Amino acid sequence: MTLLVVGSVAYDSVSTAAGTRDDALGGSATYFSVSSSFFTKVNVVAVIGDDFLESDKKKLLDYKIDISNLSTESGNTFRWKGVYDTSDVNIRETLDTQLNVFENFNPILSNSNKQSDYLFLANIAPDLQMKTLTQMSKRPKIVALDTMNFWIDDHKKDLTSIIEKVDILFMDNKEISSFTGETNLIAAARRIEEIGPSTIVIKKGEHGVIMFNKGDVFTAPALPIANVIDPTGAGDSFAGGFMGYIAKTNDTSNENLRRAIIAGSVMGSLAIEGFSIERFNKLTKNEIEDRFSRFIDITSFKTTGIT
Amino acid sequence: MTLLVVGSVAYDSVSTAAGTRDDALGGSATYFSVSSSFFTKVNVVAVIGDDFLESDKKKLLDYKIDISNLSTESGNTFRWKGVYDTSDVNIRETLDTQLNVFENFNPILSNSNKQSDYLFLANIAPDLQMKTLTQMSKRPKIVALDTMNFWIDDHKKDLTSIIEKVDILFMDNKEISSFTGETNLIAAARRIEEIGPSTIVIKKGEHGVIMFNKGDVFTAPALPIANVIDPTGAGDSFAGGFMGYIAKTNDTSNENLRRAIIAGSVMGSLAIEGFSIERFNKLTKNEIEDRFSRFIDITSFKTTGIT
Repeated sequence: MTLLVVGSVAYDSVSTAAGTRDDALGGSATYFSVSSSFFTKVNVVAVIGDDFLESDKKKLLDYKIDISNLSTESGNTFRWKGVYDTSDVNIRETLDTQLNVFENFNPILSNSNKQSDYLFLANIAPDLQMKTLTQMSKRPKIVALDTMNFWIDDHKKDLTSIIEKVDILFMDNKEISSFTGETNLIAAARRIEEIGPSTIVIKKGEHGVIMFNKGDVFTAPALPIANVIDPTGAGDSFAGGFMGYIAKTNDTSNENLRRAIIAGSVMGSLAIEGFSIERFNKLTKNEIEDRFSRFIDITSFKTTGIT
Repeated sequence: MTLLVVGSVAYDSVSTAAGTRDDALGGSATYFSVSSSFFTKVNVVAVIGDDFLESDKKKLLDYKIDISNLSTESGNTFRWKGVYDTSDVNIRETLDTQLNVFENFNPILSNSNKQSDYLFLANIAPDLQMKTLTQMSKRPKIVALDTMNFWIDDHKKDLTSIIEKVDILFMDNKEISSFTGETNLIAAARRIEEIGPSTIVIKKGEHGVIMFNKGDVFTAPALPIANVIDPTGAGDSFAGGFMGYIAKTNDTSNENLRRAIIAGSVMGSLAIEGFSIERFNKLTKNEIEDRFSRFIDITSFKTTGIT
């Protein structure tokens, strides 16, 4: 089925213990679409500047991503610069953010995009997420949304308005506690359910994911990775695997959402093994299946009684 | 098989969002032995003061715990006082610690204890852990050790000496990073393996557990608990379930260690639902099995391929 993502396409300058990259292809829509492309056809709505390289367009096309709604505006592409602590990769500092053409981003959906079956509102301003959703000519089967602390802290009203309208909410554990005022994740998920979404996917980074879905609870670990190169984009790659798998299977049952969580975890675990989208280059279905098997392996135990 | 624990028996005064308890039965050996008693016979080596209540001795006896090596010294029982943040139960502050009779604790094993098949060195001073191990007249099948940041920070040499001699090391994720200087848990586990233990159980509180066992990796979530009453003793109860299950089954295969991790997680999830050891009162095997089923439920997904 068709999958649409609206989000950012960016040039990231990143420094980690493993090295540095300057102006490498990044952004929430980039990671999401590249990751989901391994499962389904994905259309991306985003804005780039006139400095955007043809070679980077070609990279996206190589993943068979539909970039016909990637609009080019005069000016520079959105830029982000950050540094990860060399001894603890979970700690990062943003050095610079230049919105550039993203400042006036106005997502415009083509007629075919308005018919998409699955929609992912990646981490951008809540009013842009709303602008995207209201353009849909039919209600997608699933609308999912990701966000970040900045929108929770400074744009909570707008954010709440769009969260009310979505089916699946992605937040990390700190974000959901901040948004709901609840540190207990069960209580936090209940607050979200009261607002609207029936599925809450709480991302905990190296501690994995917990999903609350209509009364059901599912937990998935993160795959321990010996050599984390660059954590940038892990959450968007996770979401891409999750939504890509759902769109591919066109199955929104609880059982299938659980498998989608693992598909997302697989893609997130791959993303961090390279800078930018480098790890996805030449990634094969066999490698994805091998990693899926690793998730089976690290979570399995004999289920006969213990007493 | 026989299971021996050396550790602390204490009176804890605890304040949480759910209420307070003064001088309630606590300590690492208490939680461990009560928890493990649901799986196997357990012998406890510890010291109590002459203020220790007969009713508390009776509580331990009710769990069929062997307290014949619980020595009584003149003076007061070890006391700990702490308060948990009312909005975030993961944050706690120690208000007072009185070692009392524990200051001169000298663990003495009876002849039968020296023959124990399984030994748990709960969180006490490393030299006391060593004194216990060296008294064993035969090498136990498994020696496991727990510790805490205080010993890592201020008694690292002694601690390293005893860790060299054990099979299974329990630490939380912060402790193992502090001890090894590695924030990546795979790297940290490798450092521990170089020292001696072949099994490393990393406790991550609400984020569950990860076990590294001779090249194998196993992850287990913590069961999300809506109403956490008192987290005190969760780690010791976890260890009690883990070691109790191994002693009961007398099976140290990797597959069985994985089930032991879940058994421990079950007992840890119960411990935090009450102050002190209250939740274990009248706990039935059915309740334990029900909770084991919950762990199966929250971790299960269909394992056919995803691509």
